[in-house]
Amino acid sequence: MNIDGRQYRALWVEGKAISFIDQRKLPYTFEIFTTRSVDDVAFAIKEMVVRGAPAIGAAAAYGMALGEKEPEKSAALLRSTRPTAHDLFHAVEYMTKAIDHAENAFDAASTYVESIIDGCKKIGENGDILIKDEMTILTHCNAGALATVDYGTALAPLRVAHKKQKNIFVFADETRPRLQGLLTAWELHQEGIPYALIADNAAGYFMEKNEIDLVIVGADRIAKNGDFANKIGTYEKAVCAKENGIPFYVAAPASTFDVTLKDGKQIIIEERKRQEVTQINGKDIMPDWVTVKNPAFDLTPNKYVTGYITESGIHKKIFIREKKIVYR
Amino acid sequence: MNIDGRQYRALWVEGKAISFIDQRKLPYTFEIFTTRSVDDVAFAIKEMVVRGAPAIGAAAAYGMALGEKEPEKSAALLRSTRPTAHDLFHAVEYMTKAIDHAENAFDAASTYVESIIDGCKKIGENGDILIKDEMTILTHCNAGALATVDYGTALAPLRVAHKKQKNIFVFADETRPRLQGLLTAWELHQEGIPYALIADNAAGYFMEKNEIDLVIVGADRIAKNGDFANKIGTYEKAVCAKENGIPFYVAAPASTFDVTLKDGKQIIIEERKRQEVTQINGKDIMPDWVTVKNPAFDLTPNKYVTGYITESGIHKKIFIREKKIVYR
Repeated sequence: MNIDGRQYRALWVEGKAISFIDQRKLPYTFEIFTTRSVDDVAFAIKEMVVRGAPAIGAAAAYGMALGEKEPEKSAALLRSTRPTAHDLFHAVEYMTKAIDHAENAFDAASTYVESIIDGCKKIGENGDILIKDEMTILTHCNAGALATVDYGTALAPLRVAHKKQKNIFVFADETRPRLQGLLTAWELHQEGIPYALIADNAAGYFMEKNEIDLVIVGADRIAKNGDFANKIGTYEKAVCAKENGIPFYVAAPASTFDVTLKDGKQIIIEERKRQEVTQINGKDIMPDWVTVKNPAFDLTPNKYVTGYITESGIHKKIFIREKKIVYR
Repeated sequence: MNIDGRQYRALWVEGKAISFIDQRKLPYTFEIFTTRSVDDVAFAIKEMVVRGAPAIGAAAAYGMALGEKEPEKSAALLRSTRPTAHDLFHAVEYMTKAIDHAENAFDAASTYVESIIDGCKKIGENGDILIKDEMTILTHCNAGALATVDYGTALAPLRVAHKKQKNIFVFADETRPRLQGLLTAWELHQEGIPYALIADNAAGYFMEKNEIDLVIVGADRIAKNGDFANKIGTYEKAVCAKENGIPFYVAAPASTFDVTLKDGKQIIIEERKRQEVTQINGKDIMPDWVTVKNPAFDLTPNKYVTGYITESGIHKKIFIREKKIVYR
């Protein structure tokens, strides 16, 4: 991704250190967070130095490489960080097998990460066909390069459309409680794609006014039947999109599809700490006595999804068979 | 309303001064904002020292009394403050007539305000019938005593149910951008009603999980056919409530019904300044370069409304004829 004229990835390896763009600090300051142990990587995932299911998967792959001497312990530690993101579990499994087969762990992790980046690039090319000139697209949370190492999932088609000089406009939900919409705004700002950040409450208003033509979101875990978990608020946007006849697409690589789940009901929704709601940038915005609930994800049933944009194309329905993903 | 054991109203008259609980400061600090001219009252409305359609109406009534020597100028000034709240226009019209008839303007304003308070008290009693023991109720924004001088509209039935010792639980949407959900949390906290504040994004999640039994919201303006404007995000909650088969009620006094509008399409939606999105408590939470849109209200068509809780009862359909509101 382009950051002030230089090319970056959300995370990268240098020797035996894994560096991350510290997403807790963005878009206020650009800082690099460097890790040298699986414990540090687990911290980076849990505290959301890195976030977004595909990027979490990439971090976990490198984390397994750093912790390759105790693969079972490393796997257990990494799995305990974020329960909803499927890519995390997928990457840990991939790396466990690579280490079992005595592959070079860093090479295996890099192969994994390159496959994610390649998948996202293809998602961009495949999704671009949905985007016509003069369209306004709504997205929720950040499913951009920051969330996926590079290119993004939901944002990848927008990058391609913009590069092809289609005139597009993006509404970015601010995505409380953690305001990941600011990360989306920052990526769009860096790319020169016109956008407006809106309160999450305003998405329905713009849909009702016919000012949104298309919704594209990412996913944290997709069940065999296409039900999917994504950042809290995705369900509301999906319901409102359906009510207003607006196409609603989910963009995700194969690593986000969970072959073990028949439907979305078994997806574990992570509850996160109250401070995510009561603080912004580490400063209180609410008094101590306020009682809060903070589910981090929600579940959107497949009936709200127009299609799935994947590295193999756009699919109306998805069946996942054993370890292979079969698109129909 | 009860505040730390003392009884307060959102605004009150003392001699020729109108005092307001400064809602910009709540729930962090409790401050009184005192006005002695129609210009000061107009400022208080525009800057949201006072907010909520019925309370804005009450403020405007007193503002007209303060500006009674130039009633047309005072009326024009007050009308220019907040375009969406119907109570404001209703109160200005009421006071214009009272001044025309050479009534004592402060007495007329007090009569107007007492009728609003009386209406809200009755809304509480009428709405209480909807609330069963062990129910969980969702509300959006603040339609409490702060928004209506006393009792509230959406919160009035909850106060009555709680006083009758029904066990209830309230989800309060935080209501970005201005976080009026904190005012709701503060009122519920003061009354000892159990609640949780949630990100606006989480309301749909709890509906989908069958954890919400009933939705009650206030309104800023209701057209003849029952379409209504309310705080941005209300539309999304209404659509999700319908999708999940959850009853959705609007609580409002007669002063919020606009006899001049056939339906909601003509309601003017106020756009407010970007700082409401980019700042919290006067401090930046977003960088300067972020592009923002900030519609303050949205429109919910009547088909999403189960019923209207008014001072005359609960009504499934509403027709407003000329100056009289006829409930059927």
